[in-house]
Amino acid sequence: MSSEELGRRIDVTPEQIRKDLAGFGAFGKKGVGYHVTELLNNIGSILGLDRRWNIAIVGVGHLGWALANYRNFASMGFHLSALFDQNPAIVGQSINGVEVLSVADLERTIADRNIQIGVLAVPAGEAQPIADRLVAAGLHGIWNFAPVRIKVPESVQLVSEDLSVGLATLSYHLCRQGR
Amino acid sequence: MSSEELGRRIDVTPEQIRKDLAGFGAFGKKGVGYHVTELLNNIGSILGLDRRWNIAIVGVGHLGWALANYRNFASMGFHLSALFDQNPAIVGQSINGVEVLSVADLERTIADRNIQIGVLAVPAGEAQPIADRLVAAGLHGIWNFAPVRIKVPESVQLVSEDLSVGLATLSYHLCRQGR
Repeated sequence: MSSEELGRRIDVTPEQIRKDLAGFGAFGKKGVGYHVTELLNNIGSILGLDRRWNIAIVGVGHLGWALANYRNFASMGFHLSALFDQNPAIVGQSINGVEVLSVADLERTIADRNIQIGVLAVPAGEAQPIADRLVAAGLHGIWNFAPVRIKVPESVQLVSEDLSVGLATLSYHLCRQGR
Repeated sequence: MSSEELGRRIDVTPEQIRKDLAGFGAFGKKGVGYHVTELLNNIGSILGLDRRWNIAIVGVGHLGWALANYRNFASMGFHLSALFDQNPAIVGQSINGVEVLSVADLERTIADRNIQIGVLAVPAGEAQPIADRLVAAGLHGIWNFAPVRIKVPESVQLVSEDLSVGLATLSYHLCRQGR
């Protein structure tokens, strides 16, 4: 497939496609294009999506529940290995065969199940203390959904989802449009 | 406050802070820094956060429920004006004083309540048909949480939240770290 066709399908210029892919190696041939299966495998390997990552979700309120049901996890190599909550009414319930454990069992379970990534779906006030426990337990990555800035050591990868960015983007463009 | 201090607090270089802000006008004074209140007001105004936007959430499953309880909406000028679901067991319930209406009432309610932004928290298969109805009803912006690419006319602003981006980012950096 040509960079023109790829670009058309995802609404990006062909120049950008070629430039971005060139940043990771020599993919594709001039005048021929990209071999789709090969490209998919290469991108998956570069992103580490061909590996298996064990993840734990901490906080099984509505957001944690929604994340636990996110269907694309598995296809990206992410395996939901544990769920934690502090609410006794939620502990013991199961989502897709994974039982919700008490937060008291955090450290032991992370070690037992070889969990590498923690997903924070707790209220803002609990995010930093839980992050600290996850880091101390040896996690390598944290995906934070709590609406608060948290700190982790440099050796731990942190990705934060900030809903206000999406809202501000919408608002900004609507204003520019004169809405 | 200086660009050095601002940069230190949000972990961005002072050069980037100055460059980004300069893109929107002449803020701050050389050797003096930025007047914080003035800067906040200016940024808020540029992003349109000093206006009131009426939003509707379509789909009140766990994700929609979590979004309806997102506390930062109000402080950014976003007013939750309506909730819609097709499940009769959910229609009629209230979240923070906002009643869940039937999706059948979508068009009428959008007009009656002057709703400008629609939030899609429906399953992938329903996202495009609901987006089409929102656009036909006159909405100006769509914030899509459904795990699918949707199409809207160019006159409608679309912001999509794609969870797989966060996961791929984490995975990529963990791989590079040799985890």
